[in-house]
Amino acid sequence: MSAGWFRRRFLPGGPLPAPRPPRPRASPVPYRRPRFLRGSGSGPGSADAPRRPDARPVRSPARGRALPWNAGYAEIINAEKSEFNEDQAACGQLCIRRCEFGAEEDQEWLTLCPEEFLTGHYWALFDGHGGPAAAILAANTLHSCLRRQLEAVVEGMVALQPPMHLSGRCVCPSDPQFVEEKGIRAEDLVIGALENAFQECDEVIGRELEASGQVGGCTALVAVFLQGKLYVANAGDSRAILVRKDEVRPLSSEFTPETERQRIQQLVGAFGRGRLWSPCESRATRGHLRESDLSMASLPQAFVYPELLAGEFTRLEFPRRLKGDDLGQKVLFRDHHMRGWSYKCVEKSDLKYPLIHGQGRQARLLGTLAVSRGLGDHQLRVLDTNIQLKPFLLSVPQVTVLDVDQLELQEEDVVVMATDGLWDVLSNEQVARLVRSFLPGNQEDPHRFSELAKMLIHSTQGKDDGPTGEGQVSYDDISVFVIPLHSQGQRSSGH
Amino acid sequence: MSAGWFRRRFLPGGPLPAPRPPRPRASPVPYRRPRFLRGSGSGPGSADAPRRPDARPVRSPARGRALPWNAGYAEIINAEKSEFNEDQAACGQLCIRRCEFGAEEDQEWLTLCPEEFLTGHYWALFDGHGGPAAAILAANTLHSCLRRQLEAVVEGMVALQPPMHLSGRCVCPSDPQFVEEKGIRAEDLVIGALENAFQECDEVIGRELEASGQVGGCTALVAVFLQGKLYVANAGDSRAILVRKDEVRPLSSEFTPETERQRIQQLVGAFGRGRLWSPCESRATRGHLRESDLSMASLPQAFVYPELLAGEFTRLEFPRRLKGDDLGQKVLFRDHHMRGWSYKCVEKSDLKYPLIHGQGRQARLLGTLAVSRGLGDHQLRVLDTNIQLKPFLLSVPQVTVLDVDQLELQEEDVVVMATDGLWDVLSNEQVARLVRSFLPGNQEDPHRFSELAKMLIHSTQGKDDGPTGEGQVSYDDISVFVIPLHSQGQRSSGH
Repeated sequence: MSAGWFRRRFLPGGPLPAPRPPRPRASPVPYRRPRFLRGSGSGPGSADAPRRPDARPVRSPARGRALPWNAGYAEIINAEKSEFNEDQAACGQLCIRRCEFGAEEDQEWLTLCPEEFLTGHYWALFDGHGGPAAAILAANTLHSCLRRQLEAVVEGMVALQPPMHLSGRCVCPSDPQFVEEKGIRAEDLVIGALENAFQECDEVIGRELEASGQVGGCTALVAVFLQGKLYVANAGDSRAILVRKDEVRPLSSEFTPETERQRIQQLVGAFGRGRLWSPCESRATRGHLRESDLSMASLPQAFVYPELLAGEFTRLEFPRRLKGDDLGQKVLFRDHHMRGWSYKCVEKSDLKYPLIHGQGRQARLLGTLAVSRGLGDHQLRVLDTNIQLKPFLLSVPQVTVLDVDQLELQEEDVVVMATDGLWDVLSNEQVARLVRSFLPGNQEDPHRFSELAKMLIHSTQGKDDGPTGEGQVSYDDISVFVIPLHSQGQRSSGH
Repeated sequence: MSAGWFRRRFLPGGPLPAPRPPRPRASPVPYRRPRFLRGSGSGPGSADAPRRPDARPVRSPARGRALPWNAGYAEIINAEKSEFNEDQAACGQLCIRRCEFGAEEDQEWLTLCPEEFLTGHYWALFDGHGGPAAAILAANTLHSCLRRQLEAVVEGMVALQPPMHLSGRCVCPSDPQFVEEKGIRAEDLVIGALENAFQECDEVIGRELEASGQVGGCTALVAVFLQGKLYVANAGDSRAILVRKDEVRPLSSEFTPETERQRIQQLVGAFGRGRLWSPCESRATRGHLRESDLSMASLPQAFVYPELLAGEFTRLEFPRRLKGDDLGQKVLFRDHHMRGWSYKCVEKSDLKYPLIHGQGRQARLLGTLAVSRGLGDHQLRVLDTNIQLKPFLLSVPQVTVLDVDQLELQEEDVVVMATDGLWDVLSNEQVARLVRSFLPGNQEDPHRFSELAKMLIHSTQGKDDGPTGEGQVSYDDISVFVIPLHSQGQRSSGH
């Protein structure tokens, strides 16, 4: 898309666009050998193209030359596991304007680039489940939530140190000292804006899905380049890595029922070990709390919500699902407070279906969901029950910061962002090997980053002649961004 | 203490010893220049000696030679900030017996070392607050809780891989595969035993304090050497580090209101941003939940417990405490879901005292407590209110594992464990420099590790001629263990 794409579509204060119906794929293809729905570098007019990614470098009016930071070199493949592509992507410039203190929210906004205050770049991948609706809404919405959040704090972001009071008088002469003692930096405002934007977007998706009678959820992986830093915000199981000549650095970590086991178990877990506090347990665990219950003895139990499991699940983790034969045996288990394991004597309630069940890619929350963070899923319930998933899910991302200006960048340093379909079959090191083997031989090719993204997806399709020669096959939708970091255009953001 | 000390005092099934009254210090000393209450290497009979630490190497009957692993080289200083020393310590052998499957809990236990199944070593530091009672109870109790927890799983610990079923028939032929897929190792059983032992000890302390009308709490830092590995379990703000010739490695991290801000805020925080879920908020936040409330719209709010703050505190974090002048201003803040910062318009409720207030060593939970994990404090309330601290505290430790057998140990590799008084004035690097400058010049001194512990404490007393020459002064009680790791006796545990 062109620079200013976001501005034209999402003037602040205006209504959010209605969710577009998902685009049907052009023709059926075999399940295990999906064809590429979109080649790299093709224009957005392509019939099969996913709606958002764009591989054309964008010219910055301020500098008059191509900035690699502006480009998202994306490849997306539909594995045909659902009728519509559940992967969605978005990228473009983020144009952040300065709001005058006291200005009305709905005032006329400036829309021309040179008058904008701060320019960043934005890449996002959304991996939908239960239909593409949430992923499409997120691709349409999250960047405007983020821009709004950034505009609310931009004045603090461009100061040497964020002021205690934004656009107001200084109340206390020692305010800067307190801000310094807390170690609050401009980048903390961007991190806060990303965290708030994900939450705001989740609320928008909840409202829109309910209003339109649609369902579903999605993971979200966002990279933002702003003021010389790359911020990577992740909620779900997509992944971003930095690949350099001598370094492979993860820029995100995955949030799944396995990696967030303790947080999830705690929601339905008992504080304490149920001995000291047992007298109040029956009342507290039924959720009937009166002011009089809030004595020392009842509080620790008050934090438990076994109702969320409706008596259908056990919160304990075992090496496998238990069977009748296990009754009375001492088996390995762990509870919410344990990173280690112990043994317990199996009771009848332990035979229920586990809150988190399965290993690795097969791990599921309440037998339903493979991720523990993301957007949407407000209506999602366990099949044939009234048990909700949403209380266990977080929409807040984890944000990592890469200080790009501090790196001695080489020509072939890139960030690779991809949905889980890629990482199911390729490790970080394998992707790094592919990157390092591809780029040096294609230095003259202006489309080499797009070709690299395409090659990465190709190598998950089990072709024997693939560069890894390992013939791995992914049956999932896959989306890949390759973002070149090379030195020109390092400072694409400015005032 | 001698080997077998624990066994003699704490026969399983017997009653726990009544808490001993704290020992008064021998004579008043000036607050800012405390004298050393106990020299290194002195026997437990010393009048001023803290009750537990012992610097004498213990002879192992199985091997007949001094094992450095058996010794805890401890120094403790009472800074006189309270009438009694609130620091307590414990160390000794852990003799873990094998329980026959189905054996009664109260059967006659074997008490002689050669018949014991597994031998480990145990060092523990407890830093009390609100009096020494909890620290004394913990020093008397935690090792026996741990031994009990380890004995319950010892059969799994000595297997190549912990079996799915302990001491029972194999129910399912694929059980080992499930255990392997989950990656469950023997060390996970030790970690689980430490986590359970801390919780059990916390319950014992709660009962004992209530029964004896005493109050107080303590932090707990425990090191256990077992089967070639050193396990460090920490709940509070003490610290253990590994010091080698070319390496300083933290073996624990501190748990304070600052480091656990998000966990603490979440207990009284709203899930979601209060917009989608506001209709049910009033009921949910009053804590009156009925079955009918457990609809999608009410659940996210159901996780909040603002009652815990009794309307006296605000859960939000600001760079400083707000004043009336700040009303209506946009100030920096962060909520439980944020690692970053943002701005909000100050409302009247933001002027309340902050849930977590102050910086660094001055940070306090509810204006009261400087740590967020530990044992005891069951009765602790905010001064002049009915607001309890216990619901915000965790007794579960974080456990790290050091694979000592995998290290190429040098003669002067040591682990330094100390309460916060030491780390307030000395960094890890400064302690490492002191260790490296002291040990090589004292190779012939059989008491050099005790002397090192003494020297570390000396260098916090602001003596100008101290080895660091920096004249730092700690006004807190300080306890230090120096544990030599050198190669002889690496394998002190056996069957």
